[in-house]
Amino acid sequence: MSGRLIGVGVGPGDPELLTLKAARTLAEADVVAHFAKAGNASNARKIVEGCMRAGVIELPLLYPVTTELPAAEAAYRDSICKFYDESAAAVARHLDVGRTVAVISEGDPLFYGSYMHLHARLSQRYPTEIIPGVTGMSGCWSSVGTPIAQGDDVFVVLPATLPEPELERRFADADAVVVMKLGRHLGKVRRALGRAGRLARAVYVERGTTVDAVTMTLDQKLDDVAPYFSVILVPGWEKRS
Amino acid sequence: MSGRLIGVGVGPGDPELLTLKAARTLAEADVVAHFAKAGNASNARKIVEGCMRAGVIELPLLYPVTTELPAAEAAYRDSICKFYDESAAAVARHLDVGRTVAVISEGDPLFYGSYMHLHARLSQRYPTEIIPGVTGMSGCWSSVGTPIAQGDDVFVVLPATLPEPELERRFADADAVVVMKLGRHLGKVRRALGRAGRLARAVYVERGTTVDAVTMTLDQKLDDVAPYFSVILVPGWEKRS
Repeated sequence: MSGRLIGVGVGPGDPELLTLKAARTLAEADVVAHFAKAGNASNARKIVEGCMRAGVIELPLLYPVTTELPAAEAAYRDSICKFYDESAAAVARHLDVGRTVAVISEGDPLFYGSYMHLHARLSQRYPTEIIPGVTGMSGCWSSVGTPIAQGDDVFVVLPATLPEPELERRFADADAVVVMKLGRHLGKVRRALGRAGRLARAVYVERGTTVDAVTMTLDQKLDDVAPYFSVILVPGWEKRS
Repeated sequence: MSGRLIGVGVGPGDPELLTLKAARTLAEADVVAHFAKAGNASNARKIVEGCMRAGVIELPLLYPVTTELPAAEAAYRDSICKFYDESAAAVARHLDVGRTVAVISEGDPLFYGSYMHLHARLSQRYPTEIIPGVTGMSGCWSSVGTPIAQGDDVFVVLPATLPEPELERRFADADAVVVMKLGRHLGKVRRALGRAGRLARAVYVERGTTVDAVTMTLDQKLDDVAPYFSVILVPGWEKRS
């Protein structure tokens, strides 16, 4: 009798933004697995610190590489694919002996989350459940009180890694936009927003909903230095009623 | 000393998908306000049924019209704008006497939620807080176990009310798409998906995460009858690693 795989969204950062279901699941799970970069603490792990059952088995899944290599390079793809295969095998070893494994994900597990790589490898073989979570972007627009989309608005999420002309074209073609994974791409994103005429309403949010959160309008941010976990919000809803 | 306005996201339908913070806030609030169509029960109110404090003051805000009139017509806009003004005034009367008012929203309050109309009218005048929630769309893709977006995917939310050619163009131009507010627009959305070559992977979800949930691939759905609270998911992440 195999155990159950559960992808658990733990929300954007504030531990109180866990769902009741996520908290219950973590209190009951045999194993809690979490992704992190080798040498760093897992962000998701920090969020659930207070919800972990005493004596739970922890399974850290440590990325061998993250942003050191370009994602398009074969060396990166091979390394990362092997890492996901090995991580899935490590999770499967617990499932095979009947343990429930909760894989915690910041935000929502199926929305740009690392959990998806385990889901693709394991969900056909083991009973699987997903507990959705509050996304990082919801946490960000809520912390600044910025209504993001309403009515007939078209809402778009763009990874900052896209080429500059594509960013510009898409900024001009959407009502509301969230740009994720800013990191070293902030300068490029800023230029594309300017040329698309969307700079004036853009808001910058760093580590939304955590105690270290930083928020300002983009024109108040004078440098182009941003961590990976920062976003830009361009609110829609310009024809308000 | 005025009271506090709190926009509370109550998630996609399953009461266990409330956040810990939303549950605590509802247990403490003096007033709980909820939007509903006149004559109908509020969906958000049903979700929090078990979390309401005994003796809490309830403030139902009843829409005079919803889909009976086209949204572009002046009569609709005037009626709905007057309704939001009156709703804001009703909330303000409680805030003015020092009561904390929790306005509950299905999903996330600032993502296509009615709460935004109160926020726009009141947040400059009263201390205001937003508690983000799990969105309806997260609830839907989680209930079907469909990874929606990953890596460099462009993710787009489209209201089904958009014109058919615009839907077609945007389906062809995005990696992952969620179509909201289907209702009577399902036939149009299906045609646009077909012409954009995106029909094969489309999934239909009705009332995701509730006990009445219905899910199937869109090609398994033989009619074009859909409630307002149904969505179509077109997953991205086609180049999996």
